[in-house]
Amino acid sequence: MLALTWDGTRSRVVADAPVPEACDPTSAVVRVRLAGICSTDLQIIAGYMGFRGVLGHEFVGEVTAGPEAWVGRRVVGEINFACGRCPTCLAGRRRHCPSRSVMGILAADGAFAEYVRLPIENLHHVPDGLRDEEAVFVEPLAAAVEASLQTAAFAGGRTIVLGAGKLGLLVGQVMAARGDDVTVACRDRAACVQVEARVGLCAAAVEDVRRGCDLVIEATGTAEGLSLAMDLVRPLGGIVLKSTIAERHALDLAPLVINEVTLIGSRCGPFGPALASLVEHGVRVTPLIDAVLPLRDGAEALRRAAVRGTKKILLQPGA
Amino acid sequence: MLALTWDGTRSRVVADAPVPEACDPTSAVVRVRLAGICSTDLQIIAGYMGFRGVLGHEFVGEVTAGPEAWVGRRVVGEINFACGRCPTCLAGRRRHCPSRSVMGILAADGAFAEYVRLPIENLHHVPDGLRDEEAVFVEPLAAAVEASLQTAAFAGGRTIVLGAGKLGLLVGQVMAARGDDVTVACRDRAACVQVEARVGLCAAAVEDVRRGCDLVIEATGTAEGLSLAMDLVRPLGGIVLKSTIAERHALDLAPLVINEVTLIGSRCGPFGPALASLVEHGVRVTPLIDAVLPLRDGAEALRRAAVRGTKKILLQPGA
Repeated sequence: MLALTWDGTRSRVVADAPVPEACDPTSAVVRVRLAGICSTDLQIIAGYMGFRGVLGHEFVGEVTAGPEAWVGRRVVGEINFACGRCPTCLAGRRRHCPSRSVMGILAADGAFAEYVRLPIENLHHVPDGLRDEEAVFVEPLAAAVEASLQTAAFAGGRTIVLGAGKLGLLVGQVMAARGDDVTVACRDRAACVQVEARVGLCAAAVEDVRRGCDLVIEATGTAEGLSLAMDLVRPLGGIVLKSTIAERHALDLAPLVINEVTLIGSRCGPFGPALASLVEHGVRVTPLIDAVLPLRDGAEALRRAAVRGTKKILLQPGA
Repeated sequence: MLALTWDGTRSRVVADAPVPEACDPTSAVVRVRLAGICSTDLQIIAGYMGFRGVLGHEFVGEVTAGPEAWVGRRVVGEINFACGRCPTCLAGRRRHCPSRSVMGILAADGAFAEYVRLPIENLHHVPDGLRDEEAVFVEPLAAAVEASLQTAAFAGGRTIVLGAGKLGLLVGQVMAARGDDVTVACRDRAACVQVEARVGLCAAAVEDVRRGCDLVIEATGTAEGLSLAMDLVRPLGGIVLKSTIAERHALDLAPLVINEVTLIGSRCGPFGPALASLVEHGVRVTPLIDAVLPLRDGAEALRRAAVRGTKKILLQPGA
């Protein structure tokens, strides 16, 4: 089959990748209909995680092999494959299983391929009303929902999102849907206009943002973003750290202590509430799509996705 | 009156400090019976806060002037003097009032003196059953209680305290009193024996501490302490940052995001629950006292308090 792979040195589309098989009753094979390129994919091809294999962890597809009840269903899939038996799993923290593999990220082939295998416990049925172009956003949207679940204490307050990238605009919409007064802080006024037009969130240039907010979502992935967040948040407020800052940075955390701020690390989230936020809360995802490209042009698609300011690039194996 | 002052260059005991007066019906003058030297006092004489005036913010005393209902009562006093009118105060966050003064720390004379003035709303009556040597710990104990109030979600779990100093041993006891399984991580086995003998908490050398705990209290005030805390805590666990790390440090916060850890800045706390933890929960404070010295020897007392490993030094104006 066709697959976009990373061998540690370069990414390339191969035509002879082996089609995965549903090797036991707990797994299923999914024919990928659409997959999304994420910043994590770009970090992997920059050497992050030391991953080798088929890339990709955002997808929507159709089950072609596995337990009868699943075959033929349109699905999305959670990306962390947990052991289910260790203390972490038994404590209900399966997404943090220490021996997990992660689709397209850690020791498991991903979804930039015609077919992908995953545990059936990771599958979620996609309601008929959702188009593929929407369902493919469930994985990043789940990460946005996680930020909301972790900050229930601040629901309904004034929230500033730093970073007008894909993740920032998803988190902003999820926070607005729960009733927060959300402002997306942008580099400049032109970017503000774009944000408002795309997803209907309020936006303001960084220098115009009013300080003393209840919650800041740090989605720039820079140390400067975290320092700015500490400057914008009120005493006893919260900061969600949504993206890893790859390098070590000189940080002064004294304001965190003096103002008793809570800093919350946030990564993956649950798919159920993410599907609900698409179906019930009208979170807008398709305005975040820049292009849909055939999987066979995957290597070029990765280059294009890496250009600063590019929104979501989707890959279509069937095209 | 006698007072231990800091003029920006040196600390010294002066004999001619003016006795404060209860200038309006909202303030009281307290004759100080006993006061405690805190790490913050040592930071101030190292230049922190740019404070000038009478040092000291941990005290127990007796009201000598002010509203009739208070005169003659034995009291302790909260150290943040709030304006009471700004949005922060009206939102119930008076300890974070942006125009506050702080006794002995910021724009208000402190308690290393024969008399100190403070707002009556900051006073708390000390029950007869508590000795002065216990009541003088209410301020640091309130800071320990704050860590407990901020981490209710982790109550009853496994908690590691990093730092066997005064604050660490207070927080450890408060956490144990609420049902946490507490271990104090110490430099070496000799320090462990001391911790167990002084306050009855379990202690272990850092290298023997079992990872994967629910909550870490970082009370070493070092960047290494925070890195160690990220290494010890389980996914979705919590870290309380209890002391400011004075300099900027190169920190890698990626583990915080990947493991979805919550980092909670923690400073001052409420006196009511702190008094209760002394009276009802048997938190042991007197084993933390190294010496009680006359206020007239205050400059020497500050030098002694700065020696690494020194526990609490108390000052007695009447001696």
